Amino acid sequence: MEEFNYYNPVKILFGDKQSQIADILKADGHSEVLFVYGQSSIKKTGLYDEICESLKNANVKFIEHGGVSSNPVLSHAREGVQKAKDITAILAVGGGSVVDESKAIAAAAGMKCDVWELYEGKEVTSALPLYVVLTLSATGSEMNAGSVLTNEETKEKLSFGSPLVYPKVSVINPALTATLNENYLVYSAVDIIAHVLEVYFTAEEHPKIQNRFCENIIKSVIKTTEIILKNPNDIDARGEFALCATWALNGLTSLGVGECSFPNHMIEHSLSALYNVPHGAGLAVVIPAWLKWFYNETKNTQVDRFAKKVFGKKNAHEGILALESWFSKIGAPITLKELGINKKDVDKIIKNIVRVAPKWDLEKIYNPDVLKEILNLV
Amino acid sequence: MEEFNYYNPVKILFGDKQSQIADILKADGHSEVLFVYGQSSIKKTGLYDEICESLKNANVKFIEHGGVSSNPVLSHAREGVQKAKDITAILAVGGGSVVDESKAIAAAAGMKCDVWELYEGKEVTSALPLYVVLTLSATGSEMNAGSVLTNEETKEKLSFGSPLVYPKVSVINPALTATLNENYLVYSAVDIIAHVLEVYFTAEEHPKIQNRFCENIIKSVIKTTEIILKNPNDIDARGEFALCATWALNGLTSLGVGECSFPNHMIEHSLSALYNVPHGAGLAVVIPAWLKWFYNETKNTQVDRFAKKVFGKKNAHEGILALESWFSKIGAPITLKELGINKKDVDKIIKNIVRVAPKWDLEKIYNPDVLKEILNLV
Repeated sequence: MEEFNYYNPVKILFGDKQSQIADILKADGHSEVLFVYGQSSIKKTGLYDEICESLKNANVKFIEHGGVSSNPVLSHAREGVQKAKDITAILAVGGGSVVDESKAIAAAAGMKCDVWELYEGKEVTSALPLYVVLTLSATGSEMNAGSVLTNEETKEKLSFGSPLVYPKVSVINPALTATLNENYLVYSAVDIIAHVLEVYFTAEEHPKIQNRFCENIIKSVIKTTEIILKNPNDIDARGEFALCATWALNGLTSLGVGECSFPNHMIEHSLSALYNVPHGAGLAVVIPAWLKWFYNETKNTQVDRFAKKVFGKKNAHEGILALESWFSKIGAPITLKELGINKKDVDKIIKNIVRVAPKWDLEKIYNPDVLKEILNLV
Repeated sequence: MEEFNYYNPVKILFGDKQSQIADILKADGHSEVLFVYGQSSIKKTGLYDEICESLKNANVKFIEHGGVSSNPVLSHAREGVQKAKDITAILAVGGGSVVDESKAIAAAAGMKCDVWELYEGKEVTSALPLYVVLTLSATGSEMNAGSVLTNEETKEKLSFGSPLVYPKVSVINPALTATLNENYLVYSAVDIIAHVLEVYFTAEEHPKIQNRFCENIIKSVIKTTEIILKNPNDIDARGEFALCATWALNGLTSLGVGECSFPNHMIEHSLSALYNVPHGAGLAVVIPAWLKWFYNETKNTQVDRFAKKVFGKKNAHEGILALESWFSKIGAPITLKELGINKKDVDKIIKNIVRVAPKWDLEKIYNPDVLKEILNLV
């Protein structure tokens, strides 16, 4: 066990509780908020009306900032900051992208700085309080302190983190995810598994309790995804899926494991920055390739353990193939072609990674030759 | 999955970090604190000197309140409140008893009320901030909002809970537990397992992810206890053991499982209130008996699952015996006689339970006849 610090003050309201958020905002002293949401889905489902009505009933005024895209972009976040001049809190209603862009707006408005400075490393010293109603469980952003945004001009997809952007309250209502497009459920499943696997494979240490904790989440994601694909209205399965998403990236999996890195995210961020593919779709393509490279390179026994514990397979090789097959079986892409990316673009992708990714990651392991090796395994 | 709310803002500093606590107190604006600790052990180990020195270096004055007993008592907590008139924070250095008594002092001083009113149900509306350096991992009090105290005059052992008594910061340094008396390690192991089992068996629902989460903690406790008993200086094993203790009662195991109850704690609290036996020792006696009664009564398949997943046994009966044998193997008592309690006292014990335990628990299931049935299985 390595030393660690842990702090996660997000209040989770799990269940049919989205109508409470307006009263909570009021009780916390907010009389005008920025209401951030995505594309048209919350208008179709009636959630938009429900939120507007509860805000009105609670006498909380709001300025709307809709249209957040699924890979949220800098220009739209900047517009949000402009609108946030006179409000005291942000209400994010949507999935991880809406929450991530809201964190950007919360910090940039709180610090009166340009949004992109945050992603370039400016320390966050102030942020407007953030309240969340989650409509898609995947990124874990509802219970963590991180945010990812794409600068669509420079094609950079970067992240920042600060305890100041932890949501104050996150409502997670699994029933709200039941209208979700099936593809997005699949991408979400891959994203959750990716969050767990990055830590599981790259950590310095592997305490048994953490190994089992990670395997538990992955097994639940596999099982509940299959149930939900058969029966989209199984709210119990959606509930367990939602808990998996939150646990996968709220800090619990990395307690005591020492340093770890996110190489699959590093590579995928360049795919979605360049081609605007869904993050989970990109990860489904990257993970099996990275894992083949990683096992070839390190013969790390964690991969054997993963194969046995998660898929009941005899060895690492079979386990990697089982994961890849499962991605394919649920409908996730596993080749660049399926993502609509030409294999000839590999050098262009590597250039983007080298330009954007954290320097220490690149210098330590992922030089362009290694990246080429990995991408050639796709 | 049932609906739930979750909020746990405790900052955990895990590792050799106890010397940081003085600077944290200073940075949070506290220039005088009540320094609460137990018997002489922290003086023998040098921890007392280390804490005093760091407080002096940080210019934080302190009033000492030592002598907390292992079943903390009302009269001593009241003395603490008297000493806490002019201080702004509490520093608890010790195990669960020291933390529990400190929570009582924090709330009674904050509310200017008598300590016992809290345990009789008075709502907590204010509490002094609490900072913890943990020296014994067992009760989970370092990361929860509950406290248990014994009124030694009336022989009542009661609890209260409030988000206001969550510690602000808890230092958990597994190395500090290495000087612990072996018996107390054993009692701690039983206590941790008890916390998990109460939820695991009595919950309304059993989502798979929570079943595996609970089994994971129990397996780790069993494994690491055995390692530590062989090699008390295995700090890695002590680290995993400490994480188990914290996870077992910080709210995570009960997310989504609906209502659950703590019948083993209810019965044990009367044993320790009447005979001042160590809480974990009392639990080791109560749990197998309760479990036999529970399975006879309900044929609940969770007991079969427990037998198979935790001990690799074929059925519930074998699983219960395996748990009882394991308690005995590590040196925990499994009979009233080993606790120094005469079996003829059963009626006296039942009288105490009926007088003290939560009414709804008693009315729903645990009437005196049922309690007699259970205690006759010891």
